[in-house]
Amino acid sequence: MRKAIGVDLGGTFIKAALIDESGNILYKEEAPTLADRGPDDILRRIEGMIREIAAKNDLAVSDLAGLGIAIPGFIDDESGVADEVVNIGWRDVPVREPLKQRLGIHVSMENDANAAALGEAWVGAGRGRRFALCVTLGTGVGGGVVIDGKVLRGANTMAGEIGHMVMVPGGAACNCGHHGCLETISSATGVVRMAREALVEAKQTGRPSALSDDPELTAADVFAAANALDAVANEVVDKAIETLAWGLGTAANVINPEVIVIGGGMSRAGARLFDPLRVAFPNYALRRVAAAVTLVPAELGNDAGVVGAARLALYS
Amino acid sequence: MRKAIGVDLGGTFIKAALIDESGNILYKEEAPTLADRGPDDILRRIEGMIREIAAKNDLAVSDLAGLGIAIPGFIDDESGVADEVVNIGWRDVPVREPLKQRLGIHVSMENDANAAALGEAWVGAGRGRRFALCVTLGTGVGGGVVIDGKVLRGANTMAGEIGHMVMVPGGAACNCGHHGCLETISSATGVVRMAREALVEAKQTGRPSALSDDPELTAADVFAAANALDAVANEVVDKAIETLAWGLGTAANVINPEVIVIGGGMSRAGARLFDPLRVAFPNYALRRVAAAVTLVPAELGNDAGVVGAARLALYS
Repeated sequence: MRKAIGVDLGGTFIKAALIDESGNILYKEEAPTLADRGPDDILRRIEGMIREIAAKNDLAVSDLAGLGIAIPGFIDDESGVADEVVNIGWRDVPVREPLKQRLGIHVSMENDANAAALGEAWVGAGRGRRFALCVTLGTGVGGGVVIDGKVLRGANTMAGEIGHMVMVPGGAACNCGHHGCLETISSATGVVRMAREALVEAKQTGRPSALSDDPELTAADVFAAANALDAVANEVVDKAIETLAWGLGTAANVINPEVIVIGGGMSRAGARLFDPLRVAFPNYALRRVAAAVTLVPAELGNDAGVVGAARLALYS
Repeated sequence: MRKAIGVDLGGTFIKAALIDESGNILYKEEAPTLADRGPDDILRRIEGMIREIAAKNDLAVSDLAGLGIAIPGFIDDESGVADEVVNIGWRDVPVREPLKQRLGIHVSMENDANAAALGEAWVGAGRGRRFALCVTLGTGVGGGVVIDGKVLRGANTMAGEIGHMVMVPGGAACNCGHHGCLETISSATGVVRMAREALVEAKQTGRPSALSDDPELTAADVFAAANALDAVANEVVDKAIETLAWGLGTAANVINPEVIVIGGGMSRAGARLFDPLRVAFPNYALRRVAAAVTLVPAELGNDAGVVGAARLALYS
């Protein structure tokens, strides 16, 4: 059976895994990214990880079907260059050619959200479905569209950027430069921001809340307080979910997916997220669109990126 | 050169054209739909039009590469059935098999907005672009997405329904059952509705406007008044365009098109539509998404549907 290595380059860790053509993870490891050492150092360490993984699995590097690499930023697939990777400070960094030359194998690149989407669509919660929209609710709201086993990239690999659909013009400032994007509301960051704002208002009006405004407040804390029937927390969570339903309904009207796979840290909220989301979604998606789609939790967790990256290498 | 016939079944007219594989219209004709005579009568008359067009062009029906038919409603491509066509009162009408059996040629079906999108993407304003979003601003707001010369259909042929993206939850009622859809604001119908509302308000506040509230008021009248510097009309037109920019920016973040082709009656407003639309669009599309796309007027006019339908027959 053919095997490939998928690499998920993150701001903190580099994950790499040996994956077979059925999508099974045969071996995986991770190493700190150490972004401040610069791109060449990172690419050399990725090369080292590939060689090590091959050796540990009694393979020659040349036995591999290829290497797929997920990059947390904008890529130019034609040139094989990472245009802009804010998290690790990259700009116009050639990725494909250096790795290809050093390793002598085929190298594929993809944006990390798209790679994760491809992983989930291949062997995760979207398996067997031809049209999948995969969403990650984390620090931001990432998205990827997979059609017949291929990532929809669009004109310049920006397709699926549903986190930046403007939901509330003039709303909270977003990193992208616009205001009121979906990810300012329905991400973990958005939930924390709204909770802080709600707490300020609650204090002013003397409304009680078990939420604390300490700097460490997380979205998980807000969901926990909501589950413990804290009214302020419930309003925040309700708003994040209602807006997510609106955003997903909007995206679904555009691409008409069979499945919407929802992952990322916030998806761990489980029924408190999915139950109201499934109720609200048909208020924003056309009846026939809503009838054709199921909203399901992601299944691959943090492995989605390496699995999707390997899939690229195996089938491209 | 291979030739096919494209048919565009509308609420009022059936258009049919003989088209070659370069997208040239060699011959066209139209006939009244006469929807009240029922589906079988319509299909028999379509059959008659095909035979007549072939004969008039010295072709046997069997010389045709096929027939493509654009249907103004929901279709099930697998079964070849028109599920629901509100305009002409069809429900669960088999289309492909009856035509195929009577004519003995290959028959393809598509939703009319998708067929028009395919026509524009093939030989109209989107030619040469791999990723096209085509929008029709008419009674409603129709949309179709064409990727590498193929219509994106999605799970059940609903992809591209950007007219039903909810822009203003709780806004004006839409035919789809929701409120505040893009087409309640940025269609010709939406412009007329908003103009009527603005006129009522203008009268109450004693604000002058050259707009009349007669029952025949059209979107073209409102655009004409706006061009004549009527302040009330300009506010209405501005709102329709700002909301369209928002909707198109949202859809563009999802599919990252290279071109957005804008057709339909309202697109004839020309610079009064396109100039502010192009200014506002980047406020809603991500910088890289906006940089990759051009917004252009459609070129095929009412022929887009027959051309796209023929394309289906020629390349499927």
